[in-house]
Amino acid sequence: MENGGSPRNQWRFKRNDDLTQASAFTVRGVLNMVMEHLNASDPRPVIPLGNGDPSAFPSFRTTPLAEDAVCAAVLSAKFNGYSSTVGILPARRAVAEYLSEGLTHKLSPDDVFLTIGCTQALQTIVTVLARPSANILLPRPGFPYYEATAGFCHLEVRHFNLVPEKDWEVDLAAVEALADENTVAMVIINPGNPCGNVFKYEHLKKVAETARKLGILVIADEVYSHLTFGGSPFVPMGVFGSIVPVVTVGSISKRWIVPGWRIGWLVTNDPDGILMKQGIVDSIKGYLNITSDPATFIQGALPQILENTPSDFFLKILNTLRESVGIFCDKIKEIPCITCPSKPEGSMFVMMKLNLSLLEDIKDDLDFCCKLATEESVIILPVRLGFLGIVKVLFYQWCSANMLIFASANLTREKLVSLQGSRRIQGLAPSIICY
Amino acid sequence: MENGGSPRNQWRFKRNDDLTQASAFTVRGVLNMVMEHLNASDPRPVIPLGNGDPSAFPSFRTTPLAEDAVCAAVLSAKFNGYSSTVGILPARRAVAEYLSEGLTHKLSPDDVFLTIGCTQALQTIVTVLARPSANILLPRPGFPYYEATAGFCHLEVRHFNLVPEKDWEVDLAAVEALADENTVAMVIINPGNPCGNVFKYEHLKKVAETARKLGILVIADEVYSHLTFGGSPFVPMGVFGSIVPVVTVGSISKRWIVPGWRIGWLVTNDPDGILMKQGIVDSIKGYLNITSDPATFIQGALPQILENTPSDFFLKILNTLRESVGIFCDKIKEIPCITCPSKPEGSMFVMMKLNLSLLEDIKDDLDFCCKLATEESVIILPVRLGFLGIVKVLFYQWCSANMLIFASANLTREKLVSLQGSRRIQGLAPSIICY
Repeated sequence: MENGGSPRNQWRFKRNDDLTQASAFTVRGVLNMVMEHLNASDPRPVIPLGNGDPSAFPSFRTTPLAEDAVCAAVLSAKFNGYSSTVGILPARRAVAEYLSEGLTHKLSPDDVFLTIGCTQALQTIVTVLARPSANILLPRPGFPYYEATAGFCHLEVRHFNLVPEKDWEVDLAAVEALADENTVAMVIINPGNPCGNVFKYEHLKKVAETARKLGILVIADEVYSHLTFGGSPFVPMGVFGSIVPVVTVGSISKRWIVPGWRIGWLVTNDPDGILMKQGIVDSIKGYLNITSDPATFIQGALPQILENTPSDFFLKILNTLRESVGIFCDKIKEIPCITCPSKPEGSMFVMMKLNLSLLEDIKDDLDFCCKLATEESVIILPVRLGFLGIVKVLFYQWCSANMLIFASANLTREKLVSLQGSRRIQGLAPSIICY
Repeated sequence: MENGGSPRNQWRFKRNDDLTQASAFTVRGVLNMVMEHLNASDPRPVIPLGNGDPSAFPSFRTTPLAEDAVCAAVLSAKFNGYSSTVGILPARRAVAEYLSEGLTHKLSPDDVFLTIGCTQALQTIVTVLARPSANILLPRPGFPYYEATAGFCHLEVRHFNLVPEKDWEVDLAAVEALADENTVAMVIINPGNPCGNVFKYEHLKKVAETARKLGILVIADEVYSHLTFGGSPFVPMGVFGSIVPVVTVGSISKRWIVPGWRIGWLVTNDPDGILMKQGIVDSIKGYLNITSDPATFIQGALPQILENTPSDFFLKILNTLRESVGIFCDKIKEIPCITCPSKPEGSMFVMMKLNLSLLEDIKDDLDFCCKLATEESVIILPVRLGFLGIVKVLFYQWCSANMLIFASANLTREKLVSLQGSRRIQGLAPSIICY
């Protein structure tokens, strides 16, 4: 020691266990666990199917219009300063216009709060709702970031199931059974992450009616909005804002394939002003006052991006998704130990069910994914439902693979078959290819 | 009501008072209070001297090199995806190189965590340190965001004074008296916000020795690093990392005049690995796992910005600051009710002391700033030390004005004098001009 004598007793700062625990719930936390099992001496490139980010693949490059809009905003030097904590007005106005399409009420810029991707949007509303003894209802399977944030805020989590046999609809009877006088909200993710489902109008209406009956608000995670390629069109939950207050969270990350740009929104669909009256809007503003903001120049580019992106950009993405889902669902039939009960109609994921009785030496989904990483350098995400509390064995056996990556690499069916040949998993019976 | 029956009892979600309280502490929260007193019928433009953001003024435009670096990163399409939660490696490596200058140890990229501006950096370390019954020592005057974040995390705050008669040095005897076995850290802000002071090497060494004796870490807020224009050079606190672990927070916001770009860093200066051993590094990673990241393409631009910005850009900014401080300190002598005890040598602020006995109908600094806004459309920030707990009357009378704005508007001394004539505050004795 150079100077100053010893500490009086010991160093007084130490680990924060809340953070360690919360972070273990995130997709990134789980992916890190799986990726630690990669075999560094495998010469084959890693096939990353673990998360919803195909931006690295040329066929999923964003539209030049979006890139140009950001550059123009930077070069204008009009957006170098701090933004207001709710976001700059032109950007909030553009989001209000964009999201008003298909609603029965028209959103105002004051309904819109810009956030650092959808991540900060959901963190904001979960934090706002956290108070001692309150609880929130989350879907299972779902997006584990909700569990992580709620855990960190000490907001109790209760899970309702999505039912695979009913195209992953919400088990509304379970929602009613779970709720009590301390329940403040329920979350739905539509299009579904990780189930790839798209909720129908009538089902969403029932969700709204159930929430109204329970006196809770609906958090509608629509970060995959408009990414639908099956028979069911995307219906924004805000349509039911006059039945129950809806907080919609979203971003340009997925539809424009720019998750690294970190711009999203939290929007109140609340024509009757209930969220304002209950103080939720004030608390949202309070949280945004004490946290950071999305980069101002990206906010500056947002009107141009939302208003002028050519429709053929979106069509091409949807066609690619539709095609890759088709290939996936055909090929999966050839693998006895994996099934997909519900063909995806939206988002970027497919949920696969493992039949553990056909697999040797595989304990659960996490074990499967770790061994797949070691033996095949293929990364898929274990849904780890067992990790979220008491669940049926049924749910312990799901994996989620990002179907996009195949299409994004421009793989043809022939190439897939040849891939299947070369990436046979040894030590599992029967041999499978996980794609 | 259209559908679904009434809520069973009432809406069950409500305001989060923690957030409302925390947000009242922030500069933005206080500025909002002051700005509500602007007189909308005053035809004169508002003169905004309330916060450290001169980016809107042409003479404070950032370097074209930085703008071009961001555009190149966007157009490369290499940075559209998610970054790792600690930040991408090339950017962390560039920050490590940049901050290693002037240190006795060399920083590694693993010491660097990229954050959404300095805001997220300080939020990260304060949150990591928050555990039941712990406390943190903060400077008074200081940057109220620390109080806001600590309040939100239920981390107890204790204030030590900076001493105006000693160029705003830390009252180290007060630090020792305040600390107990639950104290985990102390914060210093250098160059000073809002005092404009620059700590000398010997004083910083004493700070490190005191912290070591107490067993607490030092959080060094160096967001204004290198913005020094007086006799004292900037000394990074990390120089004393072998005496006591130092967590340095900073960003490009101030030196490059781009606060809206939202990129900063948290850096551990800890050659003896104490922060790692105590679990602080793991907790930092845990927090970053559950929060959002700076935009990936801005991270991508960071090496170019940090390594290749021409030195004349920095010199021009410093010359402008030096000149405006000179004008300010000359002119303030003509105003009996305002004094500035210590000529600023760094950052973008000057602390002014109000002599309330020479002012009529002015209760305190907040009252002064609100009336100044109403009568003169000039915004300055009340330091509101009275708001932070029990303080002496002495400290209740300080305001902070951002000196930069004068220079940025390219005001000459003549123009300032004429401004003084035209912006006389009525109803105060003697008449003053606040600039």
